[in-house]
Amino acid sequence: MKDIRTEMKKDLEQYFDRLWPICRSITGNGLRQSLEILQEIIPLEITEVPTGTKVFDWSIPKEWNIRDAYIITPSGNKIADFSVNNLHVLNYSTPIDMELDYDALAEHIHTVPEIPDAIPYITSYYKENWGFCLSHNEWTSLPKEGKYKVKIDSELRHGSLSYGECVLKGDTEKEILFSTYLCHPSMANNELSGPLAAAFLYRKIAAMPKRKFTYRFLFAPETIGVIAFLAEHGVKLKSHIHAGYVLTCCGDSGNFTYKRSKKRTSVGDRAAEHVLRTSGGEHKVIEFAVGGSDERQYCSPGFNMPVGSLMRTPYQRYREYHTSLDNKNFISFDALEETVNTYFDIVKVLELNEVYINKIPYCEPQLGKYGLYPSSVNPVFDRESTHRLLHFLSFADGEHDLLDIADLRKDSALLYEKIITDTRTAGLI
Amino acid sequence: MKDIRTEMKKDLEQYFDRLWPICRSITGNGLRQSLEILQEIIPLEITEVPTGTKVFDWSIPKEWNIRDAYIITPSGNKIADFSVNNLHVLNYSTPIDMELDYDALAEHIHTVPEIPDAIPYITSYYKENWGFCLSHNEWTSLPKEGKYKVKIDSELRHGSLSYGECVLKGDTEKEILFSTYLCHPSMANNELSGPLAAAFLYRKIAAMPKRKFTYRFLFAPETIGVIAFLAEHGVKLKSHIHAGYVLTCCGDSGNFTYKRSKKRTSVGDRAAEHVLRTSGGEHKVIEFAVGGSDERQYCSPGFNMPVGSLMRTPYQRYREYHTSLDNKNFISFDALEETVNTYFDIVKVLELNEVYINKIPYCEPQLGKYGLYPSSVNPVFDRESTHRLLHFLSFADGEHDLLDIADLRKDSALLYEKIITDTRTAGLI
Amino acid sequence: MKDIRTEMKKDLEQYFDRLWPICRSITGNGLRQSLEILQEIIPLEITEVPTGTKVFDWSIPKEWNIRDAYIITPSGNKIADFSVNNLHVLNYSTPIDMELDYDALAEHIHTVPEIPDAIPYITSYYKENWGFCLSHNEWTSLPKEGKYKVKIDSELRHGSLSYGECVLKGDTEKEILFSTYLCHPSMANNELSGPLAAAFLYRKIAAMPKRKFTYRFLFAPETIGVIAFLAEHGVKLKSHIHAGYVLTCCGDSGNFTYKRSKKRTSVGDRAAEHVLRTSGGEHKVIEFAVGGSDERQYCSPGFNMPVGSLMRTPYQRYREYHTSLDNKNFISFDALEETVNTYFDIVKVLELNEVYINKIPYCEPQLGKYGLYPSSVNPVFDRESTHRLLHFLSFADGEHDLLDIADLRKDSALLYEKIITDTRTAGLI
Repeated sequence: MKDIRTEMKKDLEQYFDRLWPICRSITGNGLRQSLEILQEIIPLEITEVPTGTKVFDWSIPKEWNIRDAYIITPSGNKIADFSVNNLHVLNYSTPIDMELDYDALAEHIHTVPEIPDAIPYITSYYKENWGFCLSHNEWTSLPKEGKYKVKIDSELRHGSLSYGECVLKGDTEKEILFSTYLCHPSMANNELSGPLAAAFLYRKIAAMPKRKFTYRFLFAPETIGVIAFLAEHGVKLKSHIHAGYVLTCCGDSGNFTYKRSKKRTSVGDRAAEHVLRTSGGEHKVIEFAVGGSDERQYCSPGFNMPVGSLMRTPYQRYREYHTSLDNKNFISFDALEETVNTYFDIVKVLELNEVYINKIPYCEPQLGKYGLYPSSVNPVFDRESTHRLLHFLSFADGEHDLLDIADLRKDSALLYEKIITDTRTAGLI
Repeated sequence: MKDIRTEMKKDLEQYFDRLWPICRSITGNGLRQSLEILQEIIPLEITEVPTGTKVFDWSIPKEWNIRDAYIITPSGNKIADFSVNNLHVLNYSTPIDMELDYDALAEHIHTVPEIPDAIPYITSYYKENWGFCLSHNEWTSLPKEGKYKVKIDSELRHGSLSYGECVLKGDTEKEILFSTYLCHPSMANNELSGPLAAAFLYRKIAAMPKRKFTYRFLFAPETIGVIAFLAEHGVKLKSHIHAGYVLTCCGDSGNFTYKRSKKRTSVGDRAAEHVLRTSGGEHKVIEFAVGGSDERQYCSPGFNMPVGSLMRTPYQRYREYHTSLDNKNFISFDALEETVNTYFDIVKVLELNEVYINKIPYCEPQLGKYGLYPSSVNPVFDRESTHRLLHFLSFADGEHDLLDIADLRKDSALLYEKIITDTRTAGLI
Repeated sequence: MKDIRTEMKKDLEQYFDRLWPICRSITGNGLRQSLEILQEIIPLEITEVPTGTKVFDWSIPKEWNIRDAYIITPSGNKIADFSVNNLHVLNYSTPIDMELDYDALAEHIHTVPEIPDAIPYITSYYKENWGFCLSHNEWTSLPKEGKYKVKIDSELRHGSLSYGECVLKGDTEKEILFSTYLCHPSMANNELSGPLAAAFLYRKIAAMPKRKFTYRFLFAPETIGVIAFLAEHGVKLKSHIHAGYVLTCCGDSGNFTYKRSKKRTSVGDRAAEHVLRTSGGEHKVIEFAVGGSDERQYCSPGFNMPVGSLMRTPYQRYREYHTSLDNKNFISFDALEETVNTYFDIVKVLELNEVYINKIPYCEPQLGKYGLYPSSVNPVFDRESTHRLLHFLSFADGEHDLLDIADLRKDSALLYEKIITDTRTAGLI
């Protein structure tokens, strides 16, 4: 039997390498091209929302595309070359082609003095502007005399915003949502790890022989993309959603962090925390806060959906965040695979979780009759699994779901899969 | 005045010594004989449930009686002699009288290699079988050659299962249940300590001048006996029960452990925990779990009665459990008496506990008018008891019962007995 | 601009010095004279309740006035001189003028052996008696031979009990109550600090340009005065009260202690605890208990109003309590001013606290449109205040009031004042 995990890891890396160089933004061909590559893994349906469309309090901005950008120094060197690193250009820069001196140029240059070798990632979606991002080291080495030539070969025009969606039907209309964003140029943990994890999670869920829930996957530009999606589908989603998660920062080597939905104790929150708690690994659980990603929209007061986010090291908590240092070296494909598998454990727990009802509620059933009781003449019989079975039947009382039942024994809910099958076969539930 | 406690201790020991040698099981004459002895302390009414009676998911097994059992070794020694220790025979063994060699015998021998000098206690109620229990040391010293003779002079026949019940009427039909089990052969903490504690607790409650509650005492074989009782009386009991406790493991020298009912915060749970908490002694409170005794039946989903269990060291938590080492040396009659008294404190607290209503609810009453306020010219007056009185009146507001009121001050509820009498006399409640 | 705080401190001290020497009691001219002085700061309306008036379970006692009191020792020295320290006389002493020997005198002498240089404060309001209070050192130095002359020039007659009240109207009839007591002779922390803090708090609240709430200030003798007030106004107050506080022990240098109302989580409790928690200072929160002051009446079962008490070191927790050592040296006008300002912070928080409703509930508003989003091209923009604004809008969902919202971010609610103004101006709430 071949090692499937290794296979997944190789695939993750190959798709990472293909997606990496593309210059994505909240609109444009880089975004479309990325969605196309992901369609090889997950059959995304693409929606195009035209520029100017009103989506709640927002409207879809012009579409941005870019071919090239660079600066020529007074001594004739080409620097800040977009073709070398697409972070060099302020994302959504208007086109420019001019000569200017150092001081005028300085007003359009962004650096991070605290991390002098990093190129920062800067955007200006809603206020027209142009600019370049440089490492602070490179910027401070430039001469203050002489003329600089700047060239940005970009275009802002009426077009559309693209997002991709895929639905895996299950036995019920109750939905589990996986939402990830796609709009950042070449950065690894935030954000390529998110779409990659979501796409490979799709593969695992699609391979399940049976699904109680319907699964919805959304790949959209952060904020505006999700707002566009919710403007069209939010009310319906709210009526069907059972649990939801935003996938981001899935690839660094840090411990897991689960950020709760605003509801705090929804079944999606409980399942995610249960999986982390019973995994034995160190992890953190943090509350919903607006310093975050698309859960801000899902959990806004009008929607307040049960959408949390399982991450590794959250955005803004690692130094490389939103700079050129968030690159392939910063992430680990082992970690990324573990994230996919942990999300899949959550799925398995959600599928298994129900309020089960013991059909022999008065006193214990006589388990021996059903072949479910070990012979008591063996003094070292497996008391643990008999207790787990009796525990399950005792709390299958209509007031506890499986998560409650497992939590009461500090067990993983996944340990109850066989018990549920056995007791169902015996007609006990 | 004679020392009542010492008296109780002596009585406990005498009854222990008389009950000890009897070979009890879930049915049979040993059980009947034990109930008869206990009737000298508590007027138990005996019920016989015929073999084959359906009780919920179970049916009453055949009645088992035994006269003798032993093994003759190849060299002619009599070992595993039932008349020396009734644990030597597998409880509920079918009759046997045959010769066989070592290997065939081995399949019917039970030992505990981890405690090589202990004879284990093993049963086979629901699957016909025969067997002997030996210390591991004895077993390993036996020769592997030659013929062994085994003899079990027992009988399994249509008969009945016996249990004893006693009701002490009180002013109301609300009941407090004390349930203990009687089915183990010669073992001390689990189980003789339980029936002894229950019987002597009866004596103390019967001597109370006045009882608000009706008290029900049940002495039944574990599991099947309680199931038989509940099949007949469960629905009525559920409608009357105020609090209930399973008495077991009452005699070892360990600290108290209170195992909560599944309801967790019923008044019975609160009273038991209150008594332990305010006693100042170290103790543990553990949650309901199915690895337990008859509370499993009382707390099954259909009944879910408020039945907990105050023990000392719980079953399965001490090494001597279910072996010949759980004998008179293992228990202490001081500890057993303390358990009886602690249960009686719980009774006193339950009797005292009520939602009292202060009849002068607007501002404090002028306590001096009622002779309830100490002279304030004494700068060292007993602020503590005045505060307790004012505290009681302040929280006698219809929203707090006495347990709440005492807990708010980390007081024992028993400290309020005089306050309740005084304020009632003064017309304040 | 002049230093207002220093101004307040000076004023506090001047009024303290004027109020200090007056011999107050629960009735009488000392009480009236004190109210008159306080009227220079706060326009108190005085109510006189005649002797004999029934107030709930109590009745107003005779009015007590005193001109002089002293003891002449056998050697002719005047000691226990009321004109030197009014604590020397048992408060509410009946008149006396007689000679008696040491042993007879001893029955009317009060000392505190544990604090031998302190004169204790003793009263006998409801049982007629006379007596003197001495330092234990002075008492033990007196000769046991010879005749002592005692003289108390006091008077107990039909009169009235006085209390002062002031109401500052606001936009609504919902009231915030500040209750303080005035009945102790020359003692500083308990009690002059309370009425002084209440009076100067009045000044600050009266200077507010706008008030949502109506503010009621009560200056009454402890216990009987508040009972008299509640007998007349309690039912109406209960229907209007939003939050209330008893001001006492406001002037020592200890950390703050907040004693909760019996309701524990009323908005008044939450606001007080919030201010202490976000102030960064060490402090304690204690539960309601009857060993206290007038909150005992406000929180009695019939009223159960949300009245707590913000103190520094509570009564009975400091050694100088109810003795001559609770004097000007024991308190600090810095601490007293800080107490006034902390109460005023509570007022500001209560005024600001509301359930705000975000009018753009579906997804986040596009803050940039309203000039409320910082330019994102600045990589070091003030993420903190943008997050606070988004946090506010996210939780302005009808289920959280401002205190909840601020607590969720461990912020001071006062930091949201500008956000509330800005979002209201923008039409977002």
